[in-house]
Amino acid sequence: METYSSQNEYLNAVTSRAVLPAGFQAGVTSLSFFPAEIDRAKEYKMNMALILLERPSPSFHALFTNNLFCGAPVIIGRQRLKEKLCRGIIINNKISNVAAPTGEADQEKVLATLGDTLKENPRSFLPASTGIIGWSLPVTEMCEKIPLLVSNMQKESLLPVARAMMTTDAYPKVRSVRCGDGVIVAAAKGAGMIEPNLATMLVFILTDLTVRRKQLATCLSQAAENTLNRISVDSDQSTSDMAIMLSSNMKPAIDRHTLLGALTEVLGKLAEDIVRNGEGVSHVIKATVTSAPTLELAKRAGKALINSPLVKTALFGNDPNVGRLVSALGDCFGSIGFRLPRRRLTLRLGGIEIFSQDRFQLDGETEVQLQAYLKECAYSLAGHFPPHNRSVEISIDLGTGKEEATVLGADLSYDYVKENASYRS
Amino acid sequence: METYSSQNEYLNAVTSRAVLPAGFQAGVTSLSFFPAEIDRAKEYKMNMALILLERPSPSFHALFTNNLFCGAPVIIGRQRLKEKLCRGIIINNKISNVAAPTGEADQEKVLATLGDTLKENPRSFLPASTGIIGWSLPVTEMCEKIPLLVSNMQKESLLPVARAMMTTDAYPKVRSVRCGDGVIVAAAKGAGMIEPNLATMLVFILTDLTVRRKQLATCLSQAAENTLNRISVDSDQSTSDMAIMLSSNMKPAIDRHTLLGALTEVLGKLAEDIVRNGEGVSHVIKATVTSAPTLELAKRAGKALINSPLVKTALFGNDPNVGRLVSALGDCFGSIGFRLPRRRLTLRLGGIEIFSQDRFQLDGETEVQLQAYLKECAYSLAGHFPPHNRSVEISIDLGTGKEEATVLGADLSYDYVKENASYRS
Repeated sequence: METYSSQNEYLNAVTSRAVLPAGFQAGVTSLSFFPAEIDRAKEYKMNMALILLERPSPSFHALFTNNLFCGAPVIIGRQRLKEKLCRGIIINNKISNVAAPTGEADQEKVLATLGDTLKENPRSFLPASTGIIGWSLPVTEMCEKIPLLVSNMQKESLLPVARAMMTTDAYPKVRSVRCGDGVIVAAAKGAGMIEPNLATMLVFILTDLTVRRKQLATCLSQAAENTLNRISVDSDQSTSDMAIMLSSNMKPAIDRHTLLGALTEVLGKLAEDIVRNGEGVSHVIKATVTSAPTLELAKRAGKALINSPLVKTALFGNDPNVGRLVSALGDCFGSIGFRLPRRRLTLRLGGIEIFSQDRFQLDGETEVQLQAYLKECAYSLAGHFPPHNRSVEISIDLGTGKEEATVLGADLSYDYVKENASYRS
Repeated sequence: METYSSQNEYLNAVTSRAVLPAGFQAGVTSLSFFPAEIDRAKEYKMNMALILLERPSPSFHALFTNNLFCGAPVIIGRQRLKEKLCRGIIINNKISNVAAPTGEADQEKVLATLGDTLKENPRSFLPASTGIIGWSLPVTEMCEKIPLLVSNMQKESLLPVARAMMTTDAYPKVRSVRCGDGVIVAAAKGAGMIEPNLATMLVFILTDLTVRRKQLATCLSQAAENTLNRISVDSDQSTSDMAIMLSSNMKPAIDRHTLLGALTEVLGKLAEDIVRNGEGVSHVIKATVTSAPTLELAKRAGKALINSPLVKTALFGNDPNVGRLVSALGDCFGSIGFRLPRRRLTLRLGGIEIFSQDRFQLDGETEVQLQAYLKECAYSLAGHFPPHNRSVEISIDLGTGKEEATVLGADLSYDYVKENASYRS
């Protein structure tokens, strides 16, 4: 995994990646408010961010969480996909606007004010919110700040937006790739192991490459399926997850295959950034399932491993308790009725074979090697930023087909419990 | 929940519950061995226990884990269910005999030695093992101890067996109920929050009530479905879980309905004991789903709540982060495609309504009440043994049907991570 020798060097790299594509502007502002829900005497801060197309574009699409109790931005965003044109995205952190008493009306007020200020149809803006569930947006304070937000727009960098939408994120996350005469730039919010706000993942992907709406939608779905949908940190799907892609169509089109490849590269790296982000993550886990009968089963087996609390805690403790890997897979397969002949399974940890022929392939020396491997893969502050330069590689060969999938996860640490036991205090 | 003013008082109660039914004997022994797998210089201790019917009985049944990579005792146990008669159960802790090089042959050697010693068909014994996965049983040492084990049998109490099979259990767990002229006595091994060995749950149920094998099997399955299958501490299903029921048929039969009720009562209390057992459990969580369209959905919704790491960590922190409850349910329903009209859901925490009409019903005062409630429900050493006298009660009314289910779980604490990160060290 990519690392830098200091936080500054990382930020320099992110800065150089964050140059906006042609036809885009970005800006941020912040405000103070007193939440009605808990204690009006306590002041909270919120950031707002705006991504703007210089001209409305027909080339946009969004993917949303599957959570039934999704937030107002998701409900409104789904409606906006029926619109012909998109002008931009307005984002806030601190409050996710989920199941608040007048959630949708609140968000529409913010969008209406934005439309008024820019003399644009409010239905051409998509909303995105992340933060505490259940609280109401401070609508008055947000609307008051919109003129300032609009007057602060610049054409240079997406980095201020990547920073403004952070909640418990340890650092801003931006990736980009040049292709043809254009560029794809994407920023993500979402915090690996430390996911107090239900791992809310916001991803905004901007490009100037000309692409028809339908093709953009297909490429986004396919690329996300192989990247953003292959990470799982605590198995919870947020009420507010979304990924939005916009094109300004200002540069020549490239072929579909190249576009999909570039998008997959950008989202793949962002997905990795999200998992690596958490301070509580001691080990990043990469589980690769091969020779599976179906893709669905490959993903399911991989996720069963990276979501097992017993696997996660063992890896946190640098304990090669390989029995837990086999048991987590056996539990998954037994539960879904997949009768894999047990001899077909081959498991490797860090390239070392640990299970095959229905038996553990272990001895004292292997145990020592595995322990050393896990220690090497652990979080290290020695000259790395972000502080994970290696992942724990688990390979699961099912010996029964041709499908494969790789999923990314993280271990389960004291810091995870600490952060999540006291998120709102 | 039942509590006692001291550990001694608890043990007195367990002792009085553990009186063996007519026609049974029980005994224990222990041994030392040097595991081949890690370090032959380090000595380990193992307990062995034997439950014996004075005469072989046709009235027996067992339920086994669904885990594909189940242990040798499960594989052999399934075969034993085809036998006409059962004479008893031989149990060991420390090593679960899962995927060891000669696992089944090892276990059969122990059973053969037992058969020789008692002049009984070895196929009339069921094996049960719990402990580390992947290691081999110390067969020689175990066989050497069998004559001593057999000579140590007594007719008084199941308590020594309940103690001998403990691994990380904090205390022995025995429940009993009298019905008709007989009694049902059951012991369980399995350790709530602290489940280093994949929550392995061993349950042995002994009765002297006359019952035909088929009826015994049906009652056991039904009672377990509503009790042992309704607890989930870290969502992992062990390679070695089993529940075995034996009858000596020495007392008159009772009607089926009464038997099922008594069995459900005993197993329900044992299930609660298992969840309450862990030292790392700060809160026991009881989630009751009502007005569900199907029983399956009621169980699934309840388990989605008690298995969500974000719900579990919030409760550990006494944080009434009710957004996480709604989100966990929304994630579950969204994932399985259950389109509950959102207004139908009513959620209560400790009897206090927190969500209805698609909105959180919260204010500053409710927040204070909920915090106080969670603190009251937390682990307390003040005059209670076991140290959980209350559970966090969550009620989920789906407003769409007539089915209901209650599931029991536990919060996610530092001690869980600690215990599970260093289980084998």
